[in-house]
Amino acid sequence: MQIAILLYPGTTALDAVGPYEVLSRMPDADVRFVGTETGPLLTDGGALLLGVTHTLAETPAPDLVLVPGGTTTPTTMVDKEVLAWLRSVHETTTWTASVCSGAVILAAAGILKGQPATTHWAAMGPLRLMGATPRPDERIVQTSKIVTAAGVSAGIDLGLWLVGEIAGRELAEAIQLTIEYDPQPPFDAGHTSKASEPVRKRAKQLLDERTAFKQTLVKPRIAWNRLIDFVRTGK
Amino acid sequence: MQIAILLYPGTTALDAVGPYEVLSRMPDADVRFVGTETGPLLTDGGALLLGVTHTLAETPAPDLVLVPGGTTTPTTMVDKEVLAWLRSVHETTTWTASVCSGAVILAAAGILKGQPATTHWAAMGPLRLMGATPRPDERIVQTSKIVTAAGVSAGIDLGLWLVGEIAGRELAEAIQLTIEYDPQPPFDAGHTSKASEPVRKRAKQLLDERTAFKQTLVKPRIAWNRLIDFVRTGK
Repeated sequence: MQIAILLYPGTTALDAVGPYEVLSRMPDADVRFVGTETGPLLTDGGALLLGVTHTLAETPAPDLVLVPGGTTTPTTMVDKEVLAWLRSVHETTTWTASVCSGAVILAAAGILKGQPATTHWAAMGPLRLMGATPRPDERIVQTSKIVTAAGVSAGIDLGLWLVGEIAGRELAEAIQLTIEYDPQPPFDAGHTSKASEPVRKRAKQLLDERTAFKQTLVKPRIAWNRLIDFVRTGK
Repeated sequence: MQIAILLYPGTTALDAVGPYEVLSRMPDADVRFVGTETGPLLTDGGALLLGVTHTLAETPAPDLVLVPGGTTTPTTMVDKEVLAWLRSVHETTTWTASVCSGAVILAAAGILKGQPATTHWAAMGPLRLMGATPRPDERIVQTSKIVTAAGVSAGIDLGLWLVGEIAGRELAEAIQLTIEYDPQPPFDAGHTSKASEPVRKRAKQLLDERTAFKQTLVKPRIAWNRLIDFVRTGK
């Protein structure tokens, strides 16, 4: 099956690579990294380049499309080429999936309207603004062929879940064993409900520093688009 | 602090990207991806390109060096330039770390001689052959400034552990929250002790298919090197 993972400048690397590491181990997986043009893209940590090997135009009908998040999702949320491609491929996909704030991009394309979905805890507000119904306590949310995962590392869980659905539990477990996914986090602060108040503040600050550099000008445009949409459709 | 993550053709992407996603979120982290030459490298899944931004020669004294695994570790294990660089930088690192079969590369450089260490479950034999003492039931093994992690996804746990040591628990927990590392694997087959016999067989088969294509000619050379070493040093 053809699996298209969207990349854009500022993608969070683990959002894309976690599910890739799982999905690419399915024996019939034909995975490609797609974007508006081929070539290297800088991920949001500022040090890692990932390669786009196929353009969106070269990839008109993937069986599975996966949208990762990133610090630049507001920019991608108003990229007409990306949104049109997502709407178009979603018509024929078997699965349409997102990790982290990738859900907000799917929502901006109109794919999550009125649907329950999850995303990174810091992106629940934008997800609601774009017309989806946030499920902040769920790591994976599925409705029909749409499946959204929580922040960053949740893409690994999503990848295994998808393999289970696509190819059955035995293969999913075998892949889990090949990547030795037997997580033993040395701390237990991975969900907002588990982290202390100082840790939550520090995490928010880390995110703000990472996202501040280029979002300021884009957000008003998203609000405009959303309000115009509301006036035109009444929802 | 300067953090150098080694890349080579056939690196397993998540081995490198898991710890990167964690370590790069430390406010004073200066992370670089290093290799024998700059440019794109194809990872072992055959679809994802990662970028080497700095050569080994340009990176003579990183504070932290991290060696990921891959299907081509036997090739890297006999790469004299890589081994010489590892031996050299290890003299002045604060931390020398590996994920997955990256430990076997560290061992080939002579850095793990007589030391307890962990690696991917399928690489415990090679690790022992190279003179280290495998600890197959531990996810992270530390002795002085050397720290090795188990297969592929264990690099995320390692990254958090390292941040805890380097910058303290509060920052490590804040980073865990930013990447929402609250793992909820849909299956529980991530360690050989937990997977059924058919799942273990299937996983072995998946790994063999992934590694078969270019290892055949390299392994005898490693055995030669190891035996010559044994004859010369008596251990």
